[in-house]
Amino acid sequence: MDILKEKILQYGKVIDNRIVKVDSFLNHQLDIELFNEIGKEFKKRFREKNITKILTIEASGIGIACITAQYFHVPVVFAKKHNAGNLGKDIYQAEVYSFTKDVLYNVRVSKEYLSSEDKILIIDDFLANGQAVTGLMNVAKQAKAEVVGVGIVIEKRFQKGREMIEDKNIKLESLAVIEKIRDGKIVFN
Amino acid sequence: MDILKEKILQYGKVIDNRIVKVDSFLNHQLDIELFNEIGKEFKKRFREKNITKILTIEASGIGIACITAQYFHVPVVFAKKHNAGNLGKDIYQAEVYSFTKDVLYNVRVSKEYLSSEDKILIIDDFLANGQAVTGLMNVAKQAKAEVVGVGIVIEKRFQKGREMIEDKNIKLESLAVIEKIRDGKIVFN
Repeated sequence: MDILKEKILQYGKVIDNRIVKVDSFLNHQLDIELFNEIGKEFKKRFREKNITKILTIEASGIGIACITAQYFHVPVVFAKKHNAGNLGKDIYQAEVYSFTKDVLYNVRVSKEYLSSEDKILIIDDFLANGQAVTGLMNVAKQAKAEVVGVGIVIEKRFQKGREMIEDKNIKLESLAVIEKIRDGKIVFN
Repeated sequence: MDILKEKILQYGKVIDNRIVKVDSFLNHQLDIELFNEIGKEFKKRFREKNITKILTIEASGIGIACITAQYFHVPVVFAKKHNAGNLGKDIYQAEVYSFTKDVLYNVRVSKEYLSSEDKILIIDDFLANGQAVTGLMNVAKQAKAEVVGVGIVIEKRFQKGREMIEDKNIKLESLAVIEKIRDGKIVFN
């Protein structure tokens, strides 16, 4: 997706040849016109999957998931990482380890909002080691819902996320795939 | 906004005559068609304000803000409550006290994304005691940006939020105003 790659090259800030900060359009300030292009592209790539629900994770996934959901005409459910106390006790939950922050956290979804009827598209901003997506898949599995696709805005191909998802025979589509970062320069696939 | 009030009456769960849980369409599962109606209504009510940016707060404000931003053709900035470490040191921040959870937290926005040129619409899901909105106003003030309006989905009129905002001569529009809750029944304004 060329417009996205251009944005990443123009505005992305590389840290330690490992992290790409895209706060100016994806993670803190949100470029809604770009989000609409992203949503259209996800629709094109998952058109045949009869999606009934989009599942994402707070906070950075929410905006992308909401704009994308307009093209599928389905609701969004976002898994909570924080302040999940008010969800009550009837929840599905899974542990997620963040390599970037070196912390373990739980993702939680109320049992009311996922069911065995659901065909789920998981949406997230980044794919690195696949921990967050694996946590969401785990939650969906507890609900006996079917994950029919994973849509990622930026994939860091030099980490292990893709293998983890493809091992489960789930369709993965990433709109920008970073093959490597060398001397602060981003190289796309 | 009748469609919103109907949803609140149909799906809202009242707790202690004080809290209304609307997890099924606003705070956990997100009804994107409803969000579009909300966005259109905010546009109608703030049409004349020449908004340049929508400011909200993670996590529940993000989806509403993103869908609404489509009608104004402006970007969204969301203030971070969690994991703000990766914002760096050039930030505006303000303390916010949550009555509901009895905790003090900081809202933080990178200095890059608010400027003295901005005319800001603050969007949030709930208005109760106005603490979160006051924190966002404080952040905007540090940036010398002008807050030209506050758009709220559900206002709890029996708490102090409205007074705090109107005292600052800022236009406040709430799409559903709960006058009181008695014996578990919601009474709209």
